[in-house]
Amino acid sequence: MLVLGIDPGTATTGYGIIEVTGHEYSMVDYGCIKTSPRLGVPQRLEELYRQMGQLLTTYKPAVVAVEELFFNKNVRTALAVGQARGVVLLAAAAQDIEVVEYTPLQVKQGVVGYGRATKKQVQEMVKILLKLDKLPRPDDAADALAIAICYAHELPFLSRKQRMER
Amino acid sequence: MLVLGIDPGTATTGYGIIEVTGHEYSMVDYGCIKTSPRLGVPQRLEELYRQMGQLLTTYKPAVVAVEELFFNKNVRTALAVGQARGVVLLAAAAQDIEVVEYTPLQVKQGVVGYGRATKKQVQEMVKILLKLDKLPRPDDAADALAIAICYAHELPFLSRKQRMER
Repeated sequence: MLVLGIDPGTATTGYGIIEVTGHEYSMVDYGCIKTSPRLGVPQRLEELYRQMGQLLTTYKPAVVAVEELFFNKNVRTALAVGQARGVVLLAAAAQDIEVVEYTPLQVKQGVVGYGRATKKQVQEMVKILLKLDKLPRPDDAADALAIAICYAHELPFLSRKQRMER
Repeated sequence: MLVLGIDPGTATTGYGIIEVTGHEYSMVDYGCIKTSPRLGVPQRLEELYRQMGQLLTTYKPAVVAVEELFFNKNVRTALAVGQARGVVLLAAAAQDIEVVEYTPLQVKQGVVGYGRATKKQVQEMVKILLKLDKLPRPDDAADALAIAICYAHELPFLSRKQRMER
């Protein structure tokens, strides 16, 4: 199955797509959706929506995993991130794709096994788990891959829980 | 010309449409877009996007005026409002409709002439300016009408400025 991780922002939205086969992960694609600072915010959001739609149509991921919240950010940043995030969630809903959410703490715990891991440690683990030659760049794309891995790590437990619920 | 004021939120988005003819304003419609708490956030945003699109298609306003920012709200609220706001801005961009933004302070100053006016005072002025029989309800819809009036008040100055720039 394909998992699309997203680290949303108005200027730059990181994305990372991984393929999960049993306990094996591989990197399919990663990068950033960038929108021009010369455009107004509504037009930038429209561009983000269009490019998100293209990613979803191209790869048809089973799940979109999105970073949840930044308690350490200020209100203005949260509003701006929220706007981009709303557009990302809308794009997923428009194609009937499930959305899961992880806090930065959950991502660090899920990927490195340690909630206070540094950004560098997370990137190193992403490189190892996906067998990449170098650290994924830029940071937004690396974060997006980490979010996708976080969901992949949870998958065996999700299935077991679902089996138990039957 | 028609002006659509919007007070965005995931659960409830207030809207107010006014017609501006010279220095006269009249109320065309107001109310709330509500989304079910039984739905997930992506589905609620999708419902908001659909209903925003319908409002814009029905009334074809010249401008969408949106409340800008709530510095007194916390980060979690700002993120949630941001998500709804992003969807509102996207809906306007998708139909090529201009978006203008006002802070709550600007709305109070624009409508009542006093930045520390109470919510009640703003609603009273909305009632008087739009010649309504009673105070508009609920609060989100009243706020949306106030935002639309704020833009209408600015219009004569905008035109003069535009003339001066020629």
